[in-house]
Amino acid sequence: MEFSVRAARVEDCKDIRRLILELAESLKDADNVTITQRDLERDGFSENPFYHCVIAEVPEQHRTKGGHTKIGYTTYFYNYNTWCGRTIHMGDLYVMPEFRGKGIGRALMSKVAQLGLAAGCHQLNFTIFDWNKSAQDFYLRQGCIDITASTGKHFMRCEGEALERLARP
Amino acid sequence: MEFSVRAARVEDCKDIRRLILELAESLKDADNVTITQRDLERDGFSENPFYHCVIAEVPEQHRTKGGHTKIGYTTYFYNYNTWCGRTIHMGDLYVMPEFRGKGIGRALMSKVAQLGLAAGCHQLNFTIFDWNKSAQDFYLRQGCIDITASTGKHFMRCEGEALERLARP
Repeated sequence: MEFSVRAARVEDCKDIRRLILELAESLKDADNVTITQRDLERDGFSENPFYHCVIAEVPEQHRTKGGHTKIGYTTYFYNYNTWCGRTIHMGDLYVMPEFRGKGIGRALMSKVAQLGLAAGCHQLNFTIFDWNKSAQDFYLRQGCIDITASTGKHFMRCEGEALERLARP
Repeated sequence: MEFSVRAARVEDCKDIRRLILELAESLKDADNVTITQRDLERDGFSENPFYHCVIAEVPEQHRTKGGHTKIGYTTYFYNYNTWCGRTIHMGDLYVMPEFRGKGIGRALMSKVAQLGLAAGCHQLNFTIFDWNKSAQDFYLRQGCIDITASTGKHFMRCEGEALERLARP
């Protein structure tokens, strides 16, 4: 199937939010999504954006029953590894179920890899849930490695009251 | 002991590199450090920096045997969680062994928390090695949670040949 991937524009934020919600629903986590279209517009398309986004689109004749042509997305941001330098971090990667198996997910991730290499990044990092075996298989097929399994690296978080307390001198 | 924490400046990069190497040595991973002082200068202090850094400093009378007054650092960058918005990610956090137990590590991390909250971030994220029990204890005491243990989130990476291959359309 014909499709294209391109940098997201501010007018895509309504669709990006729809796709974020679909991804969250697929992870049974939609109750925790508080992001609004306005948040996405402000945080991704101001002078110093907090995230970047790539959109996958199909031609009008392949639009969904709901009338959508924007059918997948990935978010990314530039990070840093003090051992070796610039890295790129992929946030979400999502393709609507009816468009899977056509190389669209790989094309989105490939775009992030291209952008990362062009910016001098030597690593593309991301996280997955270990119970999400189909995602895991997909990434392993792309040659990715599970750093948590191989080195014991754990993802930690401070939020809410603990973060407020930590911020006090 | 008297100490101060402040935003790093470009002229700190020589000391930042020294501290990165000390941290890597303590993790028995110094062979994998390829970063140069020039990389750190270019990537942290150009118009769109890839990382930010906070330095801990002690007064001259407390300088180390080697003559150093810059005795700890932390790196951070702004990331994004599409469920809830802006986040801040702490990279390294290091204090020279002889200056530990004085609240310097907490003060560095507290600065990152302050900057994160000021920028509208609701989460401070970072990674640790699960075998580093003293670091783990320190973070749990600050109220942090182990997301990998509680949700099965794994850290994944694509690099080298696999990254080059992925970047090809």
